[in-house]
Amino acid sequence: MRALIISADNFEDSELLVPYYRLKEEGIEVDVASMNPGSIKGKHGYEVKVTKALKEVNAGDYNILILPGGRAPEEVRKEKTALDLARSFFEKNRPVAAICHGGQTLISAGLVKGRRVTCYKSVVPEMKEAGARYEDAEVVVDNNLITSRQPSDLPAFMREIMKKLKSKKT
Amino acid sequence: MRALIISADNFEDSELLVPYYRLKEEGIEVDVASMNPGSIKGKHGYEVKVTKALKEVNAGDYNILILPGGRAPEEVRKEKTALDLARSFFEKNRPVAAICHGGQTLISAGLVKGRRVTCYKSVVPEMKEAGARYEDAEVVVDNNLITSRQPSDLPAFMREIMKKLKSKKT
Repeated sequence: MRALIISADNFEDSELLVPYYRLKEEGIEVDVASMNPGSIKGKHGYEVKVTKALKEVNAGDYNILILPGGRAPEEVRKEKTALDLARSFFEKNRPVAAICHGGQTLISAGLVKGRRVTCYKSVVPEMKEAGARYEDAEVVVDNNLITSRQPSDLPAFMREIMKKLKSKKT
Repeated sequence: MRALIISADNFEDSELLVPYYRLKEEGIEVDVASMNPGSIKGKHGYEVKVTKALKEVNAGDYNILILPGGRAPEEVRKEKTALDLARSFFEKNRPVAAICHGGQTLISAGLVKGRRVTCYKSVVPEMKEAGARYEDAEVVVDNNLITSRQPSDLPAFMREIMKKLKSKKT
């Protein structure tokens, strides 16, 4: 199994690191993709190696896409390659998990209309504007789409991600 | 199940947060204990609520003790209450998991002599001095004692912690 995390500088550190380590615990290979090779730096100063430039990523190689929050999604959502990758996961009905501001990328990709989602409170207005059915819950699962609000939701977020990956494995 | 994390200011953020969220994902209750009530702040600025003052902790209430690293163990190891709590877990043969500098608390409690352990590289000399059988590995499991070296070892560290807790449950 392989997982893809798409992020950029100023990611919310725990929202990237917790899924990253959790997936590795499970023996899943994790690629971190961003606009440029090198590394990205979180709001709290953690540096994470970029293992793939966005343009090198083949969506078909991955079982799940993870979109952490922070201020990174403001930049990621401007990248056509990132939006196309997200669309690709939806077309294949593969799991996509977004936490906090991570959902902004899905808004820009036009993927939330009619979908049940949650997100960080400041993102709620544009999420509703985009036609999503917003719920205030620690995690919302709507078919392939898993969303959470904030770092304190990470336990529920990871529980549903692992459940989804296990259901795909069997 | 209940888990106890003992730490203090200047903890290594990911070494506290990753186990904290992982255990909660599993439905395990987690108490964070420190010298004083209120909150503790990590090296990277994360604030974590202290749910128990050390003197209020009853070791018998917990299935596992976790000791994150950073500069926190320098302070924790000076606290007799913390050392007594660690000894209590060893007497009951309950799991104790220490990462990075977390092992310093076990050194001060006199608990590593003859035990197979790993730890952060700068801690190796005093670990050997205390009579531990040091190994350079991502995780070392010696009966109830689970140790790792650094944040990048968190996947292996958590894998062994979860394995140990599951074996105790059955």
